[in-house]
Amino acid sequence: MDQIFSFQHLYQFTESVFIQMGCSITDAATATNALLSADIRGIDSHGVARLSGYVRLWEAKRINTTPNIRIVHETPSTAVIDGDAGLGLVVAPYAMQVAIDKAKNVGTGWVSVKNSNHFGIAGYHAMMALQHDIIGMAMTNASALVAPTFSIEKMLGTNPIAVAIPANEQPAFVADFATTTAANGKLEILQRKNADTPDGWVQDKDGNTTNDANILKKQGALLPLGSDREHGSHKGYALGSIVDIFSAVLSGASYGPWAPPFPAYIAMPENQPGQGLGHFFGAMRVDAFRPADEFKSHMDNWISRFRNAKPAPGYDKVLIPGDPEREMSAIRMSEGIPLLQSVVDDLTQVGVKFGVSL
Amino acid sequence: MDQIFSFQHLYQFTESVFIQMGCSITDAATATNALLSADIRGIDSHGVARLSGYVRLWEAKRINTTPNIRIVHETPSTAVIDGDAGLGLVVAPYAMQVAIDKAKNVGTGWVSVKNSNHFGIAGYHAMMALQHDIIGMAMTNASALVAPTFSIEKMLGTNPIAVAIPANEQPAFVADFATTTAANGKLEILQRKNADTPDGWVQDKDGNTTNDANILKKQGALLPLGSDREHGSHKGYALGSIVDIFSAVLSGASYGPWAPPFPAYIAMPENQPGQGLGHFFGAMRVDAFRPADEFKSHMDNWISRFRNAKPAPGYDKVLIPGDPEREMSAIRMSEGIPLLQSVVDDLTQVGVKFGVSL
Repeated sequence: MDQIFSFQHLYQFTESVFIQMGCSITDAATATNALLSADIRGIDSHGVARLSGYVRLWEAKRINTTPNIRIVHETPSTAVIDGDAGLGLVVAPYAMQVAIDKAKNVGTGWVSVKNSNHFGIAGYHAMMALQHDIIGMAMTNASALVAPTFSIEKMLGTNPIAVAIPANEQPAFVADFATTTAANGKLEILQRKNADTPDGWVQDKDGNTTNDANILKKQGALLPLGSDREHGSHKGYALGSIVDIFSAVLSGASYGPWAPPFPAYIAMPENQPGQGLGHFFGAMRVDAFRPADEFKSHMDNWISRFRNAKPAPGYDKVLIPGDPEREMSAIRMSEGIPLLQSVVDDLTQVGVKFGVSL
Repeated sequence: MDQIFSFQHLYQFTESVFIQMGCSITDAATATNALLSADIRGIDSHGVARLSGYVRLWEAKRINTTPNIRIVHETPSTAVIDGDAGLGLVVAPYAMQVAIDKAKNVGTGWVSVKNSNHFGIAGYHAMMALQHDIIGMAMTNASALVAPTFSIEKMLGTNPIAVAIPANEQPAFVADFATTTAANGKLEILQRKNADTPDGWVQDKDGNTTNDANILKKQGALLPLGSDREHGSHKGYALGSIVDIFSAVLSGASYGPWAPPFPAYIAMPENQPGQGLGHFFGAMRVDAFRPADEFKSHMDNWISRFRNAKPAPGYDKVLIPGDPEREMSAIRMSEGIPLLQSVVDDLTQVGVKFGVSL
């Protein structure tokens, strides 16, 4: 039922849409690369399927396609950046580059961003550091879908953390995960299949465990990584909180339940304590700690030792963070990107709006 | 059955033991403060109950009580420290102070440590930053007790992460957690009670879920935060891995399954790829991002908003990371620290060895 599109085909379409929305050619290319990196890596919930959502935010004047992205405060190793309500897909690569430049100067760079929007997948931005022999980190807050331990109120987004660490002969270590038991995209897949969730993913409006994949529409909530107190949900709640504070309280963005929602039809929460969404980026030059060749050869050793750890019966091998996405990238770059018919229809409508044919 | 001791009483005893082991008076005080912070905060598995374990490591010549702790490489925002096989309880505060000093100079400081030993609770070191209006972070690798997702081999320690964030009128946000579903100390409590573990804490030697609290002695393993793949154990595995890499691969300590074991009777793993245990510390001056008063008043707002999130039926309130430990500290500073009879007996033996009366 899926239709297959080449990366090149989707690239040209998406770039044209961003240009029609008013982005400069450079910004359109930056945003397209960031957005489609999700489709390439198999994180379909965060790729081109979201393009119409960005368009609706732009129509609602919550995205500015000609932003004046600027550093508003800095020290040798830190900066705060005002994204001027730009596309997160453009603001984030700018901010990550500032972190990388600071790492080149003083060993590490740490950048907190306010007044931004959704930035696609965190892993893409973290991975920008790898080619410089720099460890990259990226995180972002997001609209509140997650109930803290012991709460029935949604207070945090799925607040992902990405960490990319270079190796030499081995492919890089790339972790990129929501700080919830399951990402929202996994719920959406179950909704389309009319299937139940496993235990421990979501709770209903009274805080009871449920298997209803549509429970978020009924005042339910996603659960922090760990699912419940007995299995460490207070740790997932703490991780999501740290992402929220680093991304939004450090920068001056809106935090916690005030984070701006992605769907343009949902009203902004009242009494905003800051501006827009927040992100946080880190860059650590490995040779600020030990010679890069030495570090990378030990990373090779680390990765091959873990990949060859004794697997449990029924499993071939132990995976290194980033393995599944890298394998998917190789497949999709050669065989193309499958899109659901509903996504194709949605993109076709976007194309009609801007006079761009899918 | 527990015996109650005042903080002061345990302090004098512990400090005397460290001095008898050869520590300088300054180092003995530093180590005692770090060690007993666990007892005060209610993390009994990491406090004075471990003193005899440190003694045995010293007897096995794996702890050096007169270390030459030194910076072996640095940039304006980073350092690598060689702990010279010192007590982690002494090496870690030294390294955290270096991170704080670098943050004062260039906004942030990041210190990776090799050739160290167990450092007590991570939260104590992270909290050193708070009085300077600095966000503190601390993590450490540890001997392998945890099986990665899809593995039956123990490859990672419980590898804790601590993050301490200052507020103004509210108490600080202090997260401090093992990157496993349950910390090893929780297993030890169940072992003493002859009780089963909940599902999802441990697996047996074939990778099957089990409720046997003694399974680690039968080639079983602790599970990463998330318990199994369906509930996000690959995320807990990634977190534990990041702690291992930042602590040990960046510094040149021994990583993964090679991390030195805490019990002195367990032989060191062969073919060590580095020296000793590794730690990682971070310090971020909040005014390197925005004025400290502004940041701290927004942290007050963040904390009170979350503490007043709507609780689930049966719960009074939503907790902020650090609340339980702070409440315990207040109780134990006034009412004393309860020790199990087995711990009292163990400490009495230590005292006899050094001519120090408990």
